[in-house]
Amino acid sequence: MAIKRVAVIGASGYGGLQSLRLLQGHPDFVVGFLGGERSAGKRWSELCPFLPLPDDPLVETPEPARIAERADVALLSLPNGLASGLVPELLERGVRVVDLSADYRYRSLDQWSEVYAQEARSCKRTDSELCSEAVYGLPEWNAAAIASARLVAAPGCFPTTSLLPLLPFLKQGLIEQDGVIIDAKTGTSGGGRAAKEHLLLAEASESICPYGVVGHRHTSEIEQMASEIAGCAIQLQFTPHLVPMVRGLLSTVYARLRDPGLTAEDCTTVLDSFYRHHACVTVLPVGTYPATKWAKHTNCAFLSVQVDNRTGRLVLMSAVDNLMKGQAAQAIQCLNLMAGLPEATGLPLTPFYP
Amino acid sequence: MAIKRVAVIGASGYGGLQSLRLLQGHPDFVVGFLGGERSAGKRWSELCPFLPLPDDPLVETPEPARIAERADVALLSLPNGLASGLVPELLERGVRVVDLSADYRYRSLDQWSEVYAQEARSCKRTDSELCSEAVYGLPEWNAAAIASARLVAAPGCFPTTSLLPLLPFLKQGLIEQDGVIIDAKTGTSGGGRAAKEHLLLAEASESICPYGVVGHRHTSEIEQMASEIAGCAIQLQFTPHLVPMVRGLLSTVYARLRDPGLTAEDCTTVLDSFYRHHACVTVLPVGTYPATKWAKHTNCAFLSVQVDNRTGRLVLMSAVDNLMKGQAAQAIQCLNLMAGLPEATGLPLTPFYP
Amino acid sequence: MAIKRVAVIGASGYGGLQSLRLLQGHPDFVVGFLGGERSAGKRWSELCPFLPLPDDPLVETPEPARIAERADVALLSLPNGLASGLVPELLERGVRVVDLSADYRYRSLDQWSEVYAQEARSCKRTDSELCSEAVYGLPEWNAAAIASARLVAAPGCFPTTSLLPLLPFLKQGLIEQDGVIIDAKTGTSGGGRAAKEHLLLAEASESICPYGVVGHRHTSEIEQMASEIAGCAIQLQFTPHLVPMVRGLLSTVYARLRDPGLTAEDCTTVLDSFYRHHACVTVLPVGTYPATKWAKHTNCAFLSVQVDNRTGRLVLMSAVDNLMKGQAAQAIQCLNLMAGLPEATGLPLTPFYP
Amino acid sequence: MAIKRVAVIGASGYGGLQSLRLLQGHPDFVVGFLGGERSAGKRWSELCPFLPLPDDPLVETPEPARIAERADVALLSLPNGLASGLVPELLERGVRVVDLSADYRYRSLDQWSEVYAQEARSCKRTDSELCSEAVYGLPEWNAAAIASARLVAAPGCFPTTSLLPLLPFLKQGLIEQDGVIIDAKTGTSGGGRAAKEHLLLAEASESICPYGVVGHRHTSEIEQMASEIAGCAIQLQFTPHLVPMVRGLLSTVYARLRDPGLTAEDCTTVLDSFYRHHACVTVLPVGTYPATKWAKHTNCAFLSVQVDNRTGRLVLMSAVDNLMKGQAAQAIQCLNLMAGLPEATGLPLTPFYP
Repeated sequence: MAIKRVAVIGASGYGGLQSLRLLQGHPDFVVGFLGGERSAGKRWSELCPFLPLPDDPLVETPEPARIAERADVALLSLPNGLASGLVPELLERGVRVVDLSADYRYRSLDQWSEVYAQEARSCKRTDSELCSEAVYGLPEWNAAAIASARLVAAPGCFPTTSLLPLLPFLKQGLIEQDGVIIDAKTGTSGGGRAAKEHLLLAEASESICPYGVVGHRHTSEIEQMASEIAGCAIQLQFTPHLVPMVRGLLSTVYARLRDPGLTAEDCTTVLDSFYRHHACVTVLPVGTYPATKWAKHTNCAFLSVQVDNRTGRLVLMSAVDNLMKGQAAQAIQCLNLMAGLPEATGLPLTPFYP
Repeated sequence: MAIKRVAVIGASGYGGLQSLRLLQGHPDFVVGFLGGERSAGKRWSELCPFLPLPDDPLVETPEPARIAERADVALLSLPNGLASGLVPELLERGVRVVDLSADYRYRSLDQWSEVYAQEARSCKRTDSELCSEAVYGLPEWNAAAIASARLVAAPGCFPTTSLLPLLPFLKQGLIEQDGVIIDAKTGTSGGGRAAKEHLLLAEASESICPYGVVGHRHTSEIEQMASEIAGCAIQLQFTPHLVPMVRGLLSTVYARLRDPGLTAEDCTTVLDSFYRHHACVTVLPVGTYPATKWAKHTNCAFLSVQVDNRTGRLVLMSAVDNLMKGQAAQAIQCLNLMAGLPEATGLPLTPFYP
Repeated sequence: MAIKRVAVIGASGYGGLQSLRLLQGHPDFVVGFLGGERSAGKRWSELCPFLPLPDDPLVETPEPARIAERADVALLSLPNGLASGLVPELLERGVRVVDLSADYRYRSLDQWSEVYAQEARSCKRTDSELCSEAVYGLPEWNAAAIASARLVAAPGCFPTTSLLPLLPFLKQGLIEQDGVIIDAKTGTSGGGRAAKEHLLLAEASESICPYGVVGHRHTSEIEQMASEIAGCAIQLQFTPHLVPMVRGLLSTVYARLRDPGLTAEDCTTVLDSFYRHHACVTVLPVGTYPATKWAKHTNCAFLSVQVDNRTGRLVLMSAVDNLMKGQAAQAIQCLNLMAGLPEATGLPLTPFYP
Repeated sequence: MAIKRVAVIGASGYGGLQSLRLLQGHPDFVVGFLGGERSAGKRWSELCPFLPLPDDPLVETPEPARIAERADVALLSLPNGLASGLVPELLERGVRVVDLSADYRYRSLDQWSEVYAQEARSCKRTDSELCSEAVYGLPEWNAAAIASARLVAAPGCFPTTSLLPLLPFLKQGLIEQDGVIIDAKTGTSGGGRAAKEHLLLAEASESICPYGVVGHRHTSEIEQMASEIAGCAIQLQFTPHLVPMVRGLLSTVYARLRDPGLTAEDCTTVLDSFYRHHACVTVLPVGTYPATKWAKHTNCAFLSVQVDNRTGRLVLMSAVDNLMKGQAAQAIQCLNLMAGLPEATGLPLTPFYP
């Protein structure tokens, strides 16, 4: 049965807003159900006067039965822990799910419960099998599995951005498995729309700072996928930084080449051969480094690679829009695959610079 | 003859970039010619690695004969004074023109020469008749004339933003003709892409300042159109301010009501009845005030009006994206009309918030 | 008895932070008591690792008896309504007060209760006499009264910035009393440090919007002082805008000249003669317009005036740092006067540009 | 002979502006000469209406003879290559020099000529001996040599920020000499005040991007000092990024511990014992990570260290204001030492947060 009607749950957060905006311009999907917790019962135009929806719908409490009546697939943009309360019932009723939270990103529920310990305490999960079943929604690497999946876990923004340039080198065994360092920089929208002091313009503007140094949750998510592709356990160093901008995520990845004779051109060819046929990844020529502004409001990831002959090291750079390729647009890229459409259908790939 | 092929001249400036991006997503137009002065002879991908164009064209010197071979209409994004050197030859060759500069915004060449005195000194113009012929490209007010025009002068960003809320009240005679005050705020992209010290991030960021206080060039452009609609000479006060943001333009307009009994609801109805059938203008409900962020990357103008009973005064608010409805997207809105298409064809109207 | 020991109440908000920083560099004052509600019981360095205080004090609950033991004067940076719960007891115990809230800015408690209706509902005030006694802390206009006051109400940021350029013209009767328009623009720190969605960087950045259009609370505060100086009731239009920057406040003030023959030079002379001997106000030469960046981290207000002969109108511009001359630094300017010191003692007047 | 009169050369660039502002507030120095190339002949207040200087001096062409008459020491804020044209004559005339350019940062003129090849082509230098004589002006590591130096080369902003946390570990031999990675992030003022397209607000705002990847000039400067302290040749990876903010520089430094048993507390103790008596360096407690905002407008560097037991790696974080501790304020810190004053004399160490 074809996917056509999409339920958007968590509509007034940033993930929901992006999803709605993208679905508005999508040629094959319509919004069948609009769900939210805080905003249930409100008319959409009250919440969001600048993004009119046809017939100005009411936001509804996300009840699985109702969702099933009106949607073929559900896009869940809920806080970590909440999605897992909704997913089993949706799947039972035949609604396929793309979940933007971290709830189904780990193959093992135990690992999730360890990494998301706080959330695990407040929601008792027993859906271990769904964790195994869920497909990690990185379309450039999991297209076939995503296409037939009932449940897709959309990757985190840092994992998406960091894995895209790294995986080809791990897969080919071109870099040392040990000693990979990811220094990542994100705009503040990555912290969500709920008001927090450190995300105020007065606090976050005109400043950059590291956070979650050693042990940030996305470390294990990156390692899981990196290990799977490398075929062996990968441990890496991941440090996120908060940058004074709304959107954008840049990962600078350092690794040591196994063959120090490889040039930047060689390494660019490696990236290029992996992504040549992927509409949503652009590999830049040697010496052109990506700015996150290039990716703004698009589902495109811009990759570049440089080599330091002196140190035998590779520097990978990857820029995305954290709310698009890093979140909602990538979820719709998954949706496209699930619906049998070309992966970039309805997704903007070029920016309105500047 | 149908318009299909568009020449974009001044391709690497902000106006040109927006035009190219919009034409990329347009269902009825193709870019037939890519012209630039500084960038002539360069491959497009060198100039702009983040906005790939089909077949990666060379940027060419804008020669009218060549343009005429390959385009039905030309979008000119050139510095003031330069367009008038190109337009007569283009029109002769049957190429219709939408000019984004100020060269044809005044009905009289003399007035242009007075207001743009510096430019007038370096380029001797004799195209007085073209000044009279040119149509002022404000689509909501001049649709029929634009549709059949050979030469359209796309309005300035401040005039567009300020006139949209003001004109209905002038036309209806609801406000005093005397004493209109426009306090406008623009992002720095309004100053163009050429490097200037005061537009550096280090200078313009974390600061707001007025400029061109009394006598800014857009004053006379606003007054010309306001007078035409009001049916009498209008003199007004216009003060622009530079705001630390890339895009966005907000005009706050103050005027005195002739009938102090009018309410904000009444005045909203006035706006609404003028713009109800115009896709690119959104009139907000009373008490909802527009943020420029709502208009970002769209061709939509958001209008709101409030009334102060105490002072008998109207406060009009108008927010646009200065490079879109304030410049390139409005030019394409004109192009749509010239091509017999619905005015919003191919133009984004909803933002990727935030 | 000399003022030397200052109690800072509300220490971890922006007003408190500025006060502490300024007192740290002040040659004549010391911090005698550090009070806060939310932060009581915490060590200062935990709250604020970047602004070390001598002996790393504990933040204490603001009890009047304790404050009186350790301070000669109290600087209150509390939410509106809370200061009035503390002030009577402090004054009884001989502690002079500079209050940064709006609680004592109106001569009449009734007017306060009307304008701050919400606060008035939750705190029942009976200190009508203190409202009459309190001195409005605009040092350039009330120096003598401030010097001997027990209770000083530090002005709001918009009133400070708007009144400084306006009052000389009202006092001299050079402008029409009717029809004054104040279009003001503030950085987001004016909204305080408590987390609110609309002040998030993701929301407020890359956007400008009006708020509180018609009827903003500061309207009446400005009108009270303007009327007092003009000697007659002044009604004016005041519209604040939220600007994507941390600090800074610009007021653009429009008024009609009584004598249309006055030039910008004449009007600059008017400002200059009023402020020549005031260290904290700089009158700029004709044609130089102030940027808020010039005032950042200083107690200086930069004023400029331009005249439009065509319209007979005056445009006044005034730029301050909203947390300094617009708040905490002006409060310390008052403190200086109360202590018999030169008004600019210990206050920075020049910026670290850019 | 005591230093008292300072010549500031390159007055209207960012380095010059900071120097002048700092000297204004300095208890022991006065500005004896104000020099500039582009701005020579102009009255200071024309250039800089917001930073008044006593007697509003003229900016003069920097002639050594005149400088020597009026100054004991010269602070040079000139483009790379120009300082070396002035320094020999100044020293001959007995004027001591603190140079903010890169001209004397290398012990060998040959290395300078290689790294700054472009500048070397346009200025033929023969002052090889001065290169050897010059003292690298990192006060926390070279205090004694600076105190008696004729010529001090103020370090670059990236080297200052990166070396401060790194040197103690290299000196103590606690980290592997191989494999150090420095991922640095700077505000745009680091690019200077001359207008360049990529530093426009419209371009640099809302974006982060790497630049100078592999081979940035500061790499060799960092390596020179790191090697000197480590006692062996150090090769490291250095990648700078441009961050959308005016000021601030953050270095995140990755290195592998020799003894994997060391904890974050141990490593903090290492930093602490080196910097305990240095007023301009603050070592943060474990788990507190520095934001550049904390350092804004101060001469303070904020350091923090975290350890990853899993990977055996150290993460060092260092935040400064790139125009202060990263440039002009550190130059004045050197000046203080040269004048026999405490190193922090007249230098702000706490910020006006936010």
